Amino acid sequence: MADDVGSGPAAAFAGVVGIPNLLSGADIAEDYAHDEALTVEPRKPRYLAKPASAEEVAALLKAAAEHGVPVTARGSGTGLSGAARPREDGLLVSFERMNAVLEIDAENHVAVVQPGVTLSELDERTRAAGLSYTVYPGELSASVGGNVGTNAGGMRAVKYGVTRHNVLGLQAALPTGELIRTGGKTVKTSTGYDLTQLIIGSEGTLALATEVIVKLHPRLSHGATVLAPFGDLDQVMNAVPKILSSGLAPHILEYIDTLTLAAIAYNEKLALGIPDSVRDSAQAYLVVALENRLTERLDGDVEALGELLGQLGAMDVYVLEGGSARQLIEAREKAFWTAKSVGADDVIDVVVPRSAMPGFLAKARELATAAEGGALGCGHAGDGNVHLGIFCKDPDRRRKLLHDIFAEGMAVGGAISGEHGLGNAKTEHFLELEDPAKIELMRRIKQAFDPAGILNPGVLLGDS
Amino acid sequence: MADDVGSGPAAAFAGVVGIPNLLSGADIAEDYAHDEALTVEPRKPRYLAKPASAEEVAALLKAAAEHGVPVTARGSGTGLSGAARPREDGLLVSFERMNAVLEIDAENHVAVVQPGVTLSELDERTRAAGLSYTVYPGELSASVGGNVGTNAGGMRAVKYGVTRHNVLGLQAALPTGELIRTGGKTVKTSTGYDLTQLIIGSEGTLALATEVIVKLHPRLSHGATVLAPFGDLDQVMNAVPKILSSGLAPHILEYIDTLTLAAIAYNEKLALGIPDSVRDSAQAYLVVALENRLTERLDGDVEALGELLGQLGAMDVYVLEGGSARQLIEAREKAFWTAKSVGADDVIDVVVPRSAMPGFLAKARELATAAEGGALGCGHAGDGNVHLGIFCKDPDRRRKLLHDIFAEGMAVGGAISGEHGLGNAKTEHFLELEDPAKIELMRRIKQAFDPAGILNPGVLLGDS
Repeated sequence: MADDVGSGPAAAFAGVVGIPNLLSGADIAEDYAHDEALTVEPRKPRYLAKPASAEEVAALLKAAAEHGVPVTARGSGTGLSGAARPREDGLLVSFERMNAVLEIDAENHVAVVQPGVTLSELDERTRAAGLSYTVYPGELSASVGGNVGTNAGGMRAVKYGVTRHNVLGLQAALPTGELIRTGGKTVKTSTGYDLTQLIIGSEGTLALATEVIVKLHPRLSHGATVLAPFGDLDQVMNAVPKILSSGLAPHILEYIDTLTLAAIAYNEKLALGIPDSVRDSAQAYLVVALENRLTERLDGDVEALGELLGQLGAMDVYVLEGGSARQLIEAREKAFWTAKSVGADDVIDVVVPRSAMPGFLAKARELATAAEGGALGCGHAGDGNVHLGIFCKDPDRRRKLLHDIFAEGMAVGGAISGEHGLGNAKTEHFLELEDPAKIELMRRIKQAFDPAGILNPGVLLGDS
Repeated sequence: MADDVGSGPAAAFAGVVGIPNLLSGADIAEDYAHDEALTVEPRKPRYLAKPASAEEVAALLKAAAEHGVPVTARGSGTGLSGAARPREDGLLVSFERMNAVLEIDAENHVAVVQPGVTLSELDERTRAAGLSYTVYPGELSASVGGNVGTNAGGMRAVKYGVTRHNVLGLQAALPTGELIRTGGKTVKTSTGYDLTQLIIGSEGTLALATEVIVKLHPRLSHGATVLAPFGDLDQVMNAVPKILSSGLAPHILEYIDTLTLAAIAYNEKLALGIPDSVRDSAQAYLVVALENRLTERLDGDVEALGELLGQLGAMDVYVLEGGSARQLIEAREKAFWTAKSVGADDVIDVVVPRSAMPGFLAKARELATAAEGGALGCGHAGDGNVHLGIFCKDPDRRRKLLHDIFAEGMAVGGAISGEHGLGNAKTEHFLELEDPAKIELMRRIKQAFDPAGILNPGVLLGDS
């Protein structure tokens, strides 16, 4: 129970969610003070509310606007940019009680879920219908609502796109206290501004999703994973567009540098069957996963892929069996944890045009070396989304290094983040590097949604 | 040459584009007074400017804002909702001189084009690179910029999505006179609000695209088209989700009602090889097109599709040979012209959840009959996008009929338009039927972009 119920905002919030669902002070567990961002200092919120319905969320926002209390939304707290780190003077809205799968609509290939539903729960529910929600960021305990906030991606984006491409509609609470519905169970619409797309990726600064309509795909039952070592990283990068042009349509197309693979294999005790001689001279690996509804077609595709990889310079091609394939993919999904465990000071995810990846990677490493640090990693090769573990203990040098790496990514036509978002971790870089005309336009859009400025202030557009 | 160059806005506009590229009065051809919308009365603009560069577009907007002159953008004028119909007191910006394909980037699978590029030109240029821009609305003389404005769709959207899903970035002129770049050659980003998606489908009310980065797909060389007559429309509609769940991934999945097919076949002198006995009892047809990179897989898929269609109640299955398949698809693309030629008074494109199509269609026909009119058509069955030719001569009764049909579409979870947009034709219905909270939010967004209110006033949000 909140310690100051009875007066001011606490009373208003408790009036909405009920006293047991409004916490403050020592009643708020440590976990609510942070997400998984490495560089964003934990901060406990003044109030923690656990609404049970869209109407309660809207009423909380209305009360917060009236009392001038800043509001941060929280899904599962698995974000990597600190967008869910609350303000000390603020209200944290946790969606943990709004965690129902409301509908699996097999006829329309959509699911309707509350924002607190986890990806693993949704995966289980859609599996039963022979369908799949194809957004798989590393962490399956992530919530759909959190994914909407950051426009989460993951390995399958190379075939299926990121959250933005798989959300058809929302119910959302506006900071003015209204509930609106955007989009719907339709796959397209040309009827006014696309509010769904505007809210996705806005990191809780425009509106809070209270219901999400997601697109489902037929679940293809046959899959295979191929691991190919290369003697140099440029060859890996140059292979990527060729694989994508082949029409083989991989649903996973990842690169892993040799140090990262070593760390992954060591941490996870993975037996990948790679002879020492190959391992010693490999500089990077490509992981390619194919899927098909028919097993004979899958076999044909795997063979064609193997031949293609050979032509593109792979030292060898390993078709991983069920168990080790799954382990490798799962370990790759946990690369963030690997980076953390080997002492990375930050993990970033610059996105660049695919063809710019080799140059960008080389430059990023050069910058890291010059800063007396290091950069290693892996990434969504098919998407140009470079995940780098940054090793640089000194905060000032690290700040400068990040600035320079982000600037380099933007200079080659990319953006600071492909799927993690900016949050409290990278907003300052965004404000320094982005076109001021766009920042000003985004501020006016923010104002259009949130005239009182209560939603996640500081994130994306700074405090001004 | 404009007749009032030398004073006021005309001088300013001519100063930007040069005197030969600013026209007024009788120098403006009739064509510029309208697009292809059946119900929007032509109106000549006061000024017609033909800029040659993004900078000129931005300067035109700046001058228009200074002089309070409303601005309407025009691509090829093939729109079906009258969004390109200019104002009598306004400036029409035609992108006909900004028609260059700037780059086909095969490595990143993108093309960079000026907004005036036509889809047929882009198709030709991408074909040479083994790639394809997969947005194919009915009319290939349409421009990419116009498609961005209306978020155009077309038959292949069932596999590849609409314009929104195939545009990665824009350069755009803001009505405040600034040029911004949004998105880029990357397939994803989580770095601030998605301005690209907000501008797409905004029908020239927020910003004018001056450059468009589009996504390309590998061009699959083997295709087949199957035509299946059904004894009733419900069977057709019920077959759709089954076909989509099969994993056969059709790139075209259309229904055509029997009257529309008759009109198409008659107008186009199509020989489809359907025996009279089948034709007499068919109520509707499904057109399904498959594609593959391998001919033997295509053959296998066509066989599987044939079997499936039989199980789903098709009276027969015709695999159309090259020539007649192409003719049928082309004729279906021109269904708008067919509707027009048989005397339709309006053509609308309500989108509903796929499963709601049979009920919606039945209701729309019932409403049309009650209004002493008729409704017939065809549509993107896979998308739930129902294209209806409306026959109802009396304008008041027709207005009421449209209102009721749109309301019915929205009541079953759909929207007024799937791909044509609202334009000057349907904005009034949108304002009557849409949630006022959303309209007000959209007005505030419009204000954030266009404080002087010069961009296509009246369209989407009315004149208030």
